[in-house]
Formats: sequence, C-alpha cells, structure tokens
Amino acid sequence: MTNRTLKIGVVGLGRAFTLMLPTFVHDSRVKLVGATDPIAAARAQFEKDFGAPGYESMEALCANPAVEVLYIASPHQFHAAHVCLAASHGKHVMVEKPMALTVHECTRMIEATRRAGVHLIVGHSHSFNTPIRRTREIIDSGRYGAVRMINALNFTDFLYRPRRPEELDTQAGGGVIHSQATHQMDIVRLLGGGLVNSVRAHTGSWDAARPTEGAYSALLGFEGGAFASATYSGYGHYDSDELMDNIGEMGQAKDPDDYGAARKRLQNAATSTEESALKAARNYGGSLYVPGTALPQNLAHQHFGQIIVNCEKADLRPGATGIAIYTDSQKVIETLPAPVIPRREVIDELFATVVKDRPAVHSGEWARATTAVCLALLQSARTGSACRPRHQVSHNAGS
Amino acid sequence: MTNRTLKIGVVGLGRAFTLMLPTFVHDSRVKLVGATDPIAAARAQFEKDFGAPGYESMEALCANPAVEVLYIASPHQFHAAHVCLAASHGKHVMVEKPMALTVHECTRMIEATRRAGVHLIVGHSHSFNTPIRRTREIIDSGRYGAVRMINALNFTDFLYRPRRPEELDTQAGGGVIHSQATHQMDIVRLLGGGLVNSVRAHTGSWDAARPTEGAYSALLGFEGGAFASATYSGYGHYDSDELMDNIGEMGQAKDPDDYGAARKRLQNAATSTEESALKAARNYGGSLYVPGTALPQNLAHQHFGQIIVNCEKADLRPGATGIAIYTDSQKVIETLPAPVIPRREVIDELFATVVKDRPAVHSGEWARATTAVCLALLQSARTGSACRPRHQVSHNAGS
Ligand SMILES: NC(=O)c1ccc[n+]([C@@H]2O[C@H](COP(=O)([O-])OP(=O)(O)OC[C@H]3O[C@@H](n4cnc5c(N)ncnc54)[C@H](O)[C@@H]3O)[C@@H](O)[C@H]2O)c1
Ligand SMILES: NC(=O)c1ccc[n+]([C@@H]2O[C@H](COP(=O)([O-])OP(=O)(O)OC[C@H]3O[C@@H](n4cnc5c(N)ncnc54)[C@H](O)[C@@H]3O)[C@@H](O)[C@H]2O)c1
Repeated sequence: MTNRTLKIGVVGLGRAFTLMLPTFVHDSRVKLVGATDPIAAARAQFEKDFGAPGYESMEALCANPAVEVLYIASPHQFHAAHVCLAASHGKHVMVEKPMALTVHECTRMIEATRRAGVHLIVGHSHSFNTPIRRTREIIDSGRYGAVRMINALNFTDFLYRPRRPEELDTQAGGGVIHSQATHQMDIVRLLGGGLVNSVRAHTGSWDAARPTEGAYSALLGFEGGAFASATYSGYGHYDSDELMDNIGEMGQAKDPDDYGAARKRLQNAATSTEESALKAARNYGGSLYVPGTALPQNLAHQHFGQIIVNCEKADLRPGATGIAIYTDSQKVIETLPAPVIPRREVIDELFATVVKDRPAVHSGEWARATTAVCLALLQSARTGSACRPRHQVSHNAGS
Repeated sequence: MTNRTLKIGVVGLGRAFTLMLPTFVHDSRVKLVGATDPIAAARAQFEKDFGAPGYESMEALCANPAVEVLYIASPHQFHAAHVCLAASHGKHVMVEKPMALTVHECTRMIEATRRAGVHLIVGHSHSFNTPIRRTREIIDSGRYGAVRMINALNFTDFLYRPRRPEELDTQAGGGVIHSQATHQMDIVRLLGGGLVNSVRAHTGSWDAARPTEGAYSALLGFEGGAFASATYSGYGHYDSDELMDNIGEMGQAKDPDDYGAARKRLQNAATSTEESALKAARNYGGSLYVPGTALPQNLAHQHFGQIIVNCEKADLRPGATGIAIYTDSQKVIETLPAPVIPRREVIDELFATVVKDRPAVHSGEWARATTAVCLALLQSARTGSACRPRHQVSHNAGS
C-alpha cells in the first residue's frame, strides 16, 4: 500500500505547474508520466526532466493508459472542458483553482466526473496549508468554543506580475476575485464552517492600464451567525507579509530590499504581447526559466496573509511557523514542524481520495461553493446588494 | 494672544477626565477653574489638585462666570442634556465621544449651541491623533492620488475593563459600537473624506455575562467610490497592539507579560455593583486612584489600532511613531516627533475654535455624522440590510 505510486499527467506546464513541481518531484507517492502544453519548449523541458512524453494535445495524453490522474493547470477558461475530457477518458482529476468561471461550469464538472466514476479534487489552494488545517482541527476539538468572527487580510503585488491578456479581463476570468479571492474565500469558508449565507462586497479597479479588479473588501455571513471580513489588495504597495514575519506566500524568507520588484520587472514589457512573452519566458522551459528540481530548503509553511479567528474562548492566528492561540489567560504558540516537501498536503488529500477512496475536503462540491462565493462577491460589488451564494456545503460534508 | 488661557470647567471627573488630565495640567493654553461630579471624593481630589471649586451640581458650575468652556465627560446618556445646559449658560462646549445616543439628540445639541452662539467640539476621539491628521494632510497634498480603500483593525480588552451597568447595555449606550466604533468610524471617515453612503455590518455579543456588542465588522461605502472595512473585537484575546510595535492606545510601551490582565482584575468583582465600585475606585479621587499630575514620559502617539489607506499611487499606514508610505518604488517612513504633551491636538483645536474662531474639524455636525454611521452599523447588523446614514458631512466642510 505504501509503495503505491499515483501516475499523473499534467495539462498545462505554466506557472502553476512550476509551483507544484517540487511536490511532484519529491513526494514518492506520485510520479509524472506525461504532459501536454501547446508550447514546445515546455514539453521539451518536461521530457528532459522526467523522461516521459510531452504531448501536443490533451487527447493524446488521455490516450496514454499509464495516466491515472490528470493535474489540470491550464488557464481558468479551459478548466471545465479539460475536466470533462479527462473524465470521459476515465481519469481522476485534480484541477487548479479557480475551479471554473461559472457555477454552471462547476456543476458540469461535478456531473461529468460523477458519471465517469472518477474522483475530482480542486487545488492547490491555500486552504490546504497545514497551519489552516491545524487551525480547523483546533476549532473541531471544541476546546475554545464556536467560531464567531474571522478577519482575513492580504496585500500583495498580484496585479503587477506578468500576465496573459485574459488575466487582466474580468469577463475572461481575470482579476483578483477569480484568482485570489478563491484562496481567501476557501480559507475563510473552511474556518467558518463552509455555509455562507450572505456576501456584501466592494471591489476596486484602480489602474486604467490593468482594468480588472485589483482589490476588494468583503463581508460574509455564515449559517449559525458567525461572520467574516476579508480584504485583499494586489496593487503592490503595502506588503502584508510584514505581518507574517516577512515570510512570503510560498513560505520563503523575503528580502525587504526587493520592495517594488514586480513593478520594476514589468517596465521591461511595453505591450501586452511583450508582457505575455515575459510571463511565458519565466515559465517552465522558457528562456528565463531556471531549471532545477532540487528540494527547496529552509521554507516555512505557505500562507495567504493574515488570518484571525475569534472563537468563544480564544482567538487563533495561523502563521507560517505555527498557530498563536490567545486564551483568556495566556498567549500560547503551537509551533508546527517546518514542511519537508512544500504542498505535500495536496498529495495527502489526492492520495487519500484516489487510492484510499476517502472523501475529499476539496471536492468539486466544496470548490463550487467557493466559486459561488467569489461570484457573489463580484455581483454584490456590481449591484450594491447583498448576495446569497448558492450550493454551499459544510466543511465536513464529505467526512 | 499667546498668553490667552482658556478657563475650563469639568463635568464628570471619571476615567475620561483622568485620560485628559495630563493635557489639562501641562498645556498652558488651558486652566481648570471648576468641576462637578456627584462623587464627593472626586470633587475633593479636584479641589486639592487645582485649588478650584468642586460643585455638587452642574448648574452651580455653570453659574461660575470664570468658566468659559465646559468639558463634558459624564456618561453618554447625559451628554445631550449637559451640552444644552452649558449652552443655555453661554458656555462653549467640548463634549466627549460619543456625542450622544441618537441623531436626534445630536441635532438638539447642535441647535442649542448655535442658538446660544457658542462653539461645540466633540472629543477627544482618536481621529485627533497626529499620525491620523498627518495622514489626512498627505492625502490632501494629492501626491499619491485619491483614497480608494481603507482597512481598520483593532483588538482590545475593552469588554473586560470594569464597567458601570449601562456600559454593558446597548439600549443605555453600552457596548463597543457606542464607545469604540465612534473612534474607529471617526478615523475612517476623516481619512475617507467623511461622506459615508452605505454601511453594512455584523456585530457580535458572545459573552452572556456581558450581553452587549463586544465586536463588529463593518463595510462602508463613500461618495466617490472609496470604501472601508473596519473590524473591532473587545474580547480580550488577540491584542492588535502587536501590530503597533507593542505600543498601546495611550502611546505607552506595553509589557507582553500583562496578557490577560483585564480579565484577571475583573475576577475580583463578583457582582455588577462590585464592578461599578471597582471602576469608581480606580477613578479620580477613588481609593485605588494613584494621584499624580507629572507629565508622562516616553510616550509615543496615541492610536486606535491598525489603519491602512490605499491611495491610487501609495498605501499609507499611520503608526504610533510615524507614517509608513508604500509608493510604487519604495517604502518610506515619515517619522513624527514624539508628543511632548499627550492629546495636545485636542487643545490645539479647542483653542483655534474658541479663541481664534476657526471652524472645528470635530464640530457637532461632524460628530453627528459619525454617530449616524455608528447607529447605521447597529441597524444594519440588526436588519441584515445596508443602511444609508443621514447627515454626512465632508472632512473639509468646516474649512
Ligand atoms: N494554486 C496556485 O498557487 C496557483 C498559482 C498560479 C496559477 N494557478 C492556476 O493555474 C492555472 C494556470 O495559471 P498559470 O499562472 O500557471 O498560467 P500560465 O500562463 O503560466 O500557464 C498556463 C499554461 O497552460 C498552457 N495551456 C494553454 N492552453 C492549453 C491547453 N489547451 N492545453 C494544455 N495547456 C494549455 C499554456 O501554454 C501555459 O504553459 C490558473 O487556473 C491559475 O489560477 C494556481
Ligand atoms: N476619549 C476617550 O479616550 C474616552 C475614554 C473614556 C471615556 N470616554 C467618554 O467619557 C464619558 C464618561 O465615561 P467614563 O469612562 O469616564 O465614565 P466614568 O464612570 O469613569 O466617569 C463618569 C463620571 O461622571 C460622573 N457623573 C455621573 N453623572 C454625572 C452628572 N449628572 N454630572 C456630572 N458628573 C456626573 C460620575 O460620577 C463619574 O465620575 C463617556 O461618554 C465615554 O465615552 C472617552
């Protein structure tokens, strides 16, 4: 049983893939056996790194009988079609966040995988992170009473990282709601229990040259009366990693001297074509790609900014190295062992689901509920009214 | 002109008064010439400290022709009547926050002072603090473009400080909305321009033994499209002064070993009568009062938790020692000189208004608008709907 190795095919060898690469390479429970990407250089790099075929089409990858699971990391707008195609070939699926651009697409993906009898997991998202999961366990222990309020804050340079044109067009899936609220809402839903019954939000699109949402503030109500406030800015000014001991999203130590690096780098790209090319060049197999599959050292846990959970009898603050617990009488730090392999939690869940047939936390139903919250956020900001997101499921619905 | 000294009479020698005491004692532009409080020990302490009469009634204080300004620091529920009484005696007024418990009362106070031709200032509130005012100046310089988003966060032990019964009863003015949202909304309004056009909020009352609001999250919309998110918890767990270099609300260095002190102290009070007595005992002239009017040393600026302002071209973060400015290319700290006399800003405004006849920032109209926002917050939480607060005024309406 422990020797069982899941054979994974990759759809889309872009940035998301490079972020999962150390996990795929170093977690012995999985093995990459094939990939597809329209970019030849990416396929060539894959063949070199893994001695496995890089296919020009997803159909060809699906036709490879060795592939058990497809990791779908293509751009958002292809997720639905790619998941349905994978399911039709009887492959299990792990699809990147956001699950899809509409709730209807999510439902199609759930139905297609269910019909095919294959498993569907949505991730990586930062609600997989050990400090978040451990905070959920502490809540579940009941020691500190029910969750009452959650506060989430993240300030990054998201909007100034090199982008494809559709990443700057909300209609096409661009902006921080589709790409970043998915993380934050997934975390807030996991800690708040999952069942969001109202969403009120404001969004901001403040840079005419990048005319999609770069920021938002949202207020969420949960069944049972808990509530959450979540704020995000991707405008590359204040960096809330200051609040996380200068540890970045990927668990890496950050150098304060790198302030403004994203904007600076972007000045080399005058047009949107140049910008897409810059993104591609830094990606897997691209001209600026730094090859290497060595296990990254000295990482803390990944995170998605500051999270404070008020329970009845304590506040919980998950961080990159542990969880601060503020009880009536004392502040206790529950230190977490540093991660050995980043994002190993994703493989834990994939393996448990596909090999041990355990219900996934990050199931299609779970991720559809997060997508519904993100879309409600956009709608509330547009209409000025509260929205009740549909399809909400409890965090322990699967278990 | 510089030798002009404003003669102040004090109404209510309680905790608020002790917080203003160093200011009144050390700012040579003001002089305390009389006071009233039902508590004899407080009056005796006042007579001892200031060699000026302590009256048993406010009427008697008002009858003293030497008094030019009344500083009204009685409990919330008396503010309206006390301001109207002061005005009817032709005295200028500085009344503590919250201005009053209803918008109607605020209007009565504005009209009474206007009719009497006297000035009305509402404060101290933490929007007087130099770092907040300086942030407003930086915004007004236009250098960083318009304000787009504000995030405010404050976690304290407010609910576990010793309280009078009405301070734990929302109807009577108790809870964090009346007492603490006034500070936070005043700051957010000042930085956001003042004109709030929508308030959505959740409030929390989580301790059955102290059945008033102890926490809230609110989302505010401003005319012009800026928005703000504000969260407060007074439940005495996580302490957001961690985010302020462990400098407390009064600008004092905080000792992390004091964690949980408020709850611990409160254990000595079993009944609400004992608790009121505990509050009174610590107050001016009480048995636990530590006399002393020496100028406090080594204070930083006062603050009301973390505030982040997104402008178009920079984020601004006012702190206790300066303002962090996060531009496109660099993080700059604008250091502020340490305060010589705490809350001197209050006297600056009082003096400018009463002596130099300049329009007050914290006028009755301004404070009524803040009260309206706080009441909208309560109403939104109760009804689940957005509220449009009435009587909003711009931050530069007076000037
Ligand atoms: N979980 C995370 O931390 C994380 C991080 C980044 C991106 N993502 C997600 O991953 C997805 C991809 O984003 P990205 O930033 O990697 O984009 P990217 O542009 O860097 O990579 C996308 C890759 O997909 C390839 N592609 C395009 N069409 C394809 C097709 N039809 N079949 C196969 N491959 C195709 C592109 O050539 C490219 O190599 C998005 O949904 C994004 O939200 C997740
Ligand atoms: N700006 C600040 O930092 C700050 C801090 C604390 C309190 N306050 C405000 O000050 C006001 C008083 O609160 P507190 O905490 O000082 O309460 P407190 O109970 O400590 O003090 C109130 C005082 O008023 C006296 N009093 C009661 N009835 C009176 C009357 N009819 N005439 C004159 N005096 C009377 C009481 O005997 C007591 O000494 C409140 O409105 C509160 O919001 C402001």
